[in-house]
Amino acid sequence: MPSTVPAASGLARDAGATLCEQLAGRFADQIRQRVLPPGSRLPSIRDCARRQQVSASTVVAAYELLLAQGLVEAQRHRGFFVRETSRPGRNGPGAAATLPGTARMPLPISATTLMRGMFQGPGAQPMPGLGTLPVDWLDPAMLAQALRRVGNGRALAEMALQYGEPAGELRLREALVDLLAERGVAAQARQIITTVGATHGLDVVTRSLLHAGDTVLCDEPGWSVEYARLAALGLRVLPVPRREDGPDLAAMERLIDAQEPAGRPRLYVTVSVLHNPTGGCLSLPVAHRLLQLAQRHDFMVLEDDSYAYLAPAHQPRLAALDGLERTIYVSGFSKILAPNWRVGFIAAPACWVERFIDTKLLSTLTTPGLNEQALAHCLEQGWLRRHAERIGHKLERARARTVRLAEAHGCRFAAPPRGLFGWVDAGADTELLAQRAHDAGWLLAPGTLFHATPRPCTLMRINFASSQDARFWDTLARIRDAH
Amino acid sequence: MPSTVPAASGLARDAGATLCEQLAGRFADQIRQRVLPPGSRLPSIRDCARRQQVSASTVVAAYELLLAQGLVEAQRHRGFFVRETSRPGRNGPGAAATLPGTARMPLPISATTLMRGMFQGPGAQPMPGLGTLPVDWLDPAMLAQALRRVGNGRALAEMALQYGEPAGELRLREALVDLLAERGVAAQARQIITTVGATHGLDVVTRSLLHAGDTVLCDEPGWSVEYARLAALGLRVLPVPRREDGPDLAAMERLIDAQEPAGRPRLYVTVSVLHNPTGGCLSLPVAHRLLQLAQRHDFMVLEDDSYAYLAPAHQPRLAALDGLERTIYVSGFSKILAPNWRVGFIAAPACWVERFIDTKLLSTLTTPGLNEQALAHCLEQGWLRRHAERIGHKLERARARTVRLAEAHGCRFAAPPRGLFGWVDAGADTELLAQRAHDAGWLLAPGTLFHATPRPCTLMRINFASSQDARFWDTLARIRDAH
Repeated sequence: MPSTVPAASGLARDAGATLCEQLAGRFADQIRQRVLPPGSRLPSIRDCARRQQVSASTVVAAYELLLAQGLVEAQRHRGFFVRETSRPGRNGPGAAATLPGTARMPLPISATTLMRGMFQGPGAQPMPGLGTLPVDWLDPAMLAQALRRVGNGRALAEMALQYGEPAGELRLREALVDLLAERGVAAQARQIITTVGATHGLDVVTRSLLHAGDTVLCDEPGWSVEYARLAALGLRVLPVPRREDGPDLAAMERLIDAQEPAGRPRLYVTVSVLHNPTGGCLSLPVAHRLLQLAQRHDFMVLEDDSYAYLAPAHQPRLAALDGLERTIYVSGFSKILAPNWRVGFIAAPACWVERFIDTKLLSTLTTPGLNEQALAHCLEQGWLRRHAERIGHKLERARARTVRLAEAHGCRFAAPPRGLFGWVDAGADTELLAQRAHDAGWLLAPGTLFHATPRPCTLMRINFASSQDARFWDTLARIRDAH
Repeated sequence: MPSTVPAASGLARDAGATLCEQLAGRFADQIRQRVLPPGSRLPSIRDCARRQQVSASTVVAAYELLLAQGLVEAQRHRGFFVRETSRPGRNGPGAAATLPGTARMPLPISATTLMRGMFQGPGAQPMPGLGTLPVDWLDPAMLAQALRRVGNGRALAEMALQYGEPAGELRLREALVDLLAERGVAAQARQIITTVGATHGLDVVTRSLLHAGDTVLCDEPGWSVEYARLAALGLRVLPVPRREDGPDLAAMERLIDAQEPAGRPRLYVTVSVLHNPTGGCLSLPVAHRLLQLAQRHDFMVLEDDSYAYLAPAHQPRLAALDGLERTIYVSGFSKILAPNWRVGFIAAPACWVERFIDTKLLSTLTTPGLNEQALAHCLEQGWLRRHAERIGHKLERARARTVRLAEAHGCRFAAPPRGLFGWVDAGADTELLAQRAHDAGWLLAPGTLFHATPRPCTLMRINFASSQDARFWDTLARIRDAH
């Protein structure tokens, strides 16, 4: 795979560039991609030399190259630190930076930093902070087989040479009707709109319902990228404490009542099942009372069911209770099929479908039919269901092993371990731990990133599937205890 | 291909549904998809019966079915008209419609109506109003061959099972560096960000640079979907008269000077080459003076080069002159490769790259690697270049034939015929003509849709490739003269 960042063990002694240049290049890429955000400390020269299996003088030369490139700065007795790289004075004509928009709408960098970490961790080992299943758990043969069925010349001629249906491939939408029925959600094909992954679904819905200055309710803790997305749209986020069985409804009502009439929220965004990061699932009574509250205060509910395939059977969804009247349902396949297939969908109340399709058209026109047809084939053949069952069993074993390891290393679960993610109290500030773990080659997801307003905390999110390596827990305990 | 709308000649006498049901179903789909927007008149019973080759009583029964479904209403002595279909009182709980956001941010329906027409014209014949090349001009075998190379199990395992690089597949970005060099634009791979078609590129850039309430300059006439996109983002559009050789710079400067300091535009969005709808190309001196004006008034330029593959050789681009300092370049492959492949890209000043990647991540996370790898293969092998040359010759012949037909039928070209689109004065109000042409099975793109504020006009945009049928021009002349 073409990649600008070689694996941690990937410095090649016979490559065109010297080891020093390769090492500097790797750090430069991580800095530019904010895997190493401004202000982060580079590993100590000794640590780096040991991990990369190069001499200390090679590391010194690489760090000096980064200094010369203006990417890092040296601080006496403290080491090397990443500088701000997008300074317009150095990289551009300066004109862009004078746009008032730049200053007025800052993106929460911390969230996008973690998000970028999702794409390229600092090393080749499984990353406890990541949000996806390990690559070797997935089934590329299934995708390749589906692709052979739908990607031949004649099929492509029928599919790709026109823009396709605005709502998405009908064949996929029909397969999704059956999938939704299994989840208790009754929807017609014409209520379904395909998107470029669930993220795009959330974006289309939010952009259609709200605009800058509007108020939106969402869970806290919650997925940092969701906060970043809402903030980038100029929305005012009201965080609602998330408990094991759903949102704290009394707190939600107090929050709503505290708003000026014009500032009342119109939307509540929630991961109802296998909530990220706590793994909690909405209980039936809380779901019922939530929908009553939504009716009383006249807001819509956006139910993000990204972890549906890992959910316990018969787990109730808001969209099922509500009959897709006040609830908009979004889900996808990144967690189970392949993160880069990028097919998700919206199931919406009939009266909102046209509006959502309009927003989809204005944001990406249509979505790629090839990917949708291949997914439809996997669904129709029952391949994805069988694959999900296998993943479910595997995840159960991984979770049991990870829980044992975590507890043996002095960590405590802040919520009952369920689904893909564990919400773990590590016993020390996890932002500091994350920085040190990163130096040691492990990517953590510190708790601060799961709060609408970042705050120091001792919690972190771990991925049960990629935290089974005892060396990770040993390292974590060591850096915590050294702290 | 699965489709809810059969071709005009596609009523099947042996299908499960009766002819009447099939016909009603087709109209119902067109109404729901706004190919037939609220207020449009259904064809007369006699016309419809003749075109569909069914009896008048079948048409009557179909129209009565639509009446019973509440989709149309009968007006005495005038015929059948489409009703408003998304009335919340009928289709939903009403809650949604009480959201103030609905009323505050209306989408320009007329633009999305045309856009939807792009996906499914009322019949099977080539549609003069469409924006794409006819299906049989494209080369699905090329795509299928590329797919076989990049879509096997091992390649998929490397590509699809992780989220992919946030900026897009490196292999494609490297191929795009060469493509841009051919267009005179010097860019590095790290200045390129792939998107879900050019539309997504325009959306990512605009959302990153501006936010609701900001002012943006754009060409008039211009592509209606672009106006709709900007309006949906809550931006204030300042239309600049577009002349054959580029924007009217004096008018642009007067517009800028007339704004309050806080309302000064920060961005100018333009199709510089083969402008949609006029076919005009920015001249070198106007490009130079435009960039000077941009510097003086400190705005950025978003250059939409969607028709690049159809452009004359050596046609200068703003991004080339400017060296990607103040200009952001967006292009795609829908017009030449396949509309539904959905791969486009941004080439950006270095200091904006990270911001655009962040917005991309928040809108769709990554983009599908499979589609990008297949396109990269087509580019690397020179397939796309050779295909574009063939298309160029074919388009030249089509343009000559269409120009002859248009002029022979009393139409006049308001701008020199070039590229894919002709900007034609039909000699009568084209919105009325479009309605009547639609009844006769032809989709027109009336001039009103190419203005920031719709206005009646006698201009329309035609697609040279899909306006070669003499019957279309005969029909147009007939309905114009009957008017």
